[in-house]
Amino acid sequence: MALIVQKYGGTSVGDLDRIANVARRVAKTRDEGNEVVVILSAMSGVTDQLISMAGNICKTPDIREMDVLLATGEQTTVSLMAMTLQAMGYKARSMLGHQAEILTDSRYNRARILDIGARRIRQLLADGHIVVVAGFQGVDANGDITTLGRGGSDTSAVAVAAAMKADQCEIYTDVDGIYTADPNICSKARKLTRIAYDEIMEMASLGAKVLQIRSVEFAKKYNVPLHVRSSFNQEDGTMVVHEDADMEKVVVSGVAHNKNEARITLRKVPDRPGIASRILKPVADAGISVDMIIQNTRLSNMTDLTFTVPKSDFEAAMEIEKKVALEIGAAEVLGDESIAKVSVIGVGMRSHSGVASKMFATLAEENINIMMISTSEIRISCIIEEKYTELAVRSLHTAFDLDSE
Amino acid sequence: MALIVQKYGGTSVGDLDRIANVARRVAKTRDEGNEVVVILSAMSGVTDQLISMAGNICKTPDIREMDVLLATGEQTTVSLMAMTLQAMGYKARSMLGHQAEILTDSRYNRARILDIGARRIRQLLADGHIVVVAGFQGVDANGDITTLGRGGSDTSAVAVAAAMKADQCEIYTDVDGIYTADPNICSKARKLTRIAYDEIMEMASLGAKVLQIRSVEFAKKYNVPLHVRSSFNQEDGTMVVHEDADMEKVVVSGVAHNKNEARITLRKVPDRPGIASRILKPVADAGISVDMIIQNTRLSNMTDLTFTVPKSDFEAAMEIEKKVALEIGAAEVLGDESIAKVSVIGVGMRSHSGVASKMFATLAEENINIMMISTSEIRISCIIEEKYTELAVRSLHTAFDLDSE
Repeated sequence: MALIVQKYGGTSVGDLDRIANVARRVAKTRDEGNEVVVILSAMSGVTDQLISMAGNICKTPDIREMDVLLATGEQTTVSLMAMTLQAMGYKARSMLGHQAEILTDSRYNRARILDIGARRIRQLLADGHIVVVAGFQGVDANGDITTLGRGGSDTSAVAVAAAMKADQCEIYTDVDGIYTADPNICSKARKLTRIAYDEIMEMASLGAKVLQIRSVEFAKKYNVPLHVRSSFNQEDGTMVVHEDADMEKVVVSGVAHNKNEARITLRKVPDRPGIASRILKPVADAGISVDMIIQNTRLSNMTDLTFTVPKSDFEAAMEIEKKVALEIGAAEVLGDESIAKVSVIGVGMRSHSGVASKMFATLAEENINIMMISTSEIRISCIIEEKYTELAVRSLHTAFDLDSE
Repeated sequence: MALIVQKYGGTSVGDLDRIANVARRVAKTRDEGNEVVVILSAMSGVTDQLISMAGNICKTPDIREMDVLLATGEQTTVSLMAMTLQAMGYKARSMLGHQAEILTDSRYNRARILDIGARRIRQLLADGHIVVVAGFQGVDANGDITTLGRGGSDTSAVAVAAAMKADQCEIYTDVDGIYTADPNICSKARKLTRIAYDEIMEMASLGAKVLQIRSVEFAKKYNVPLHVRSSFNQEDGTMVVHEDADMEKVVVSGVAHNKNEARITLRKVPDRPGIASRILKPVADAGISVDMIIQNTRLSNMTDLTFTVPKSDFEAAMEIEKKVALEIGAAEVLGDESIAKVSVIGVGMRSHSGVASKMFATLAEENINIMMISTSEIRISCIIEEKYTELAVRSLHTAFDLDSE
């Protein structure tokens, strides 16, 4: 008898028919002799509706109260799921974050899990129940409701799986696994059978959006094998695991792209020590995260500094830099929203050289100009003109031998 | 500085505009130097929507899970209210049932409050907060969510007021007080300035629907003065208090009516000891509450037995009695859904005689036939044909000197 944790996202529980579909899947796993803990998100769209409702009260609603409001979404789905399982003849119980003892810090809207007691989950499993736990929510030391941020139900699932020492943690979503590239723009993309935690972390941060990145960190830390799969079919998806020798033989596992960044350049900045900090600190202070940064020396005492920010923060960042430019005596501030980031990712890069030069050559062959470059141990990313995104992804996919037959 | 508990019903918090309206009222009470605890219901219609959603899963959804689902309604309103008060510049915090330590038994859907800790409410008040508590919900000894049944927020409010030894408990609703009769059918009905707990309990059980009857029992037991008033205007409503000498001078305080009962008669029942129990026990066992019962002796060894049940249980009760009639050898089972109950209520009846005869004479003058009669110390009720309801209420209202000028 194995202990399986299954997490279903908002699309999978989007209405009562889909909840019934998920319930049949859960029941099948139970019928096969397993203990099952189910983690649910809110019905798709509900969290956004609640956020929008609160936004009508004031622009920045209190974050503690926001979490109380948002937590109703998962509370609804877990109760409906438990009812559905019971109507099918199974013993089932819902558990909210505080009931499942998902203890977090008090950073409302983006709390981190500190500990999971899971005493009641254990009791209920021992008593033959399917346990349905509200994802996304926890409780802090004061007994206040907290939420874990976008995609937080993935982290709930992994944390519960870790605390329960589950045999597997299945993440059900509306895609059937993790692909070598986005199938919408690269028809030859293949579903990966396995992927390393480190690889998916690089892909997720680049916009692959399949799993919340913190959940993968958690899974890696506590050695929880993840199975990412679709709730709409019975096929195996992608296993997310520790890297192994087989994976290292493959140089590149996937090609990711991200169109959600914008570029800001300050031209002819007087090149003094501390000038980069002078330019970037006000942006960071405004809560805007900067991704890539490059600095070109132009003349002996002048430099250009370029960095990227999320598109949603572009206008705010431009406003800030226009003020900074005046203060430090930069010549001008240029903004560009028509950029994209393409990346190749693979744990195999650790033991293979020549990946970067092959990437640059491939883009050059297609006459795609590279504006900025950043690298990590297992990833190389280039900023290019947005209009070349699809071409770049397809060319790289072919060049690194990822195309399906 | 007084401590005021204010309860707002579903209509009063039906949308964001109405929530803002309530928030202004709460803020005014705070500005006047009072400590304020606000108890809220779910937005009007939400609880019914949730019940209907669960009803689509199965006919009798699990009651534990039902309470988890229903509790989201109040969770939504309290968070929105706290956000609204904060946006207006007030310190405010929401508290759910378990956070406010509203401890109940484990009878899901109709739990009874055992105790209120209110430690956190006290702390928050001391810290200058307006505390917004979710009505209708509590928590049992296992940490499971419970709900208190229809109108349970009234009971939450009274219980919190009792636990906090509040100076007043204001029940805000969509009517502006308690009337001598339903103004919809009796244009001369007057708003009562004061009414006794005992009187309103008799009126509520007869269909006046202004307050949950359990909340009044609670208020009487713990000596909590209630002020029933409208959230849509600034007028004083009706105070519900212990009876006093002034009230006893008035013979009848109000005329109530109820069209939600139906009558069932078993004819020519063999008159044996225990036969009434033989007829009524199966109905009680089916969870149907019987209100009035009369038994007429017809012949030496035959009797007719008539009783009333809620209209919603009429068909089920008829089915049961048809079987019983066969078993005990009754001649036939007659059902009648076209009946109504009219009642006169007043603590003054304890010290005045002649109320019953005046009531019967008044109805007789209008040629209204009385089918059944029941009485309590402070109430006389008659079952009449439904079509005479309005006429009966108006005639009794005039006869007992209740008409407004």
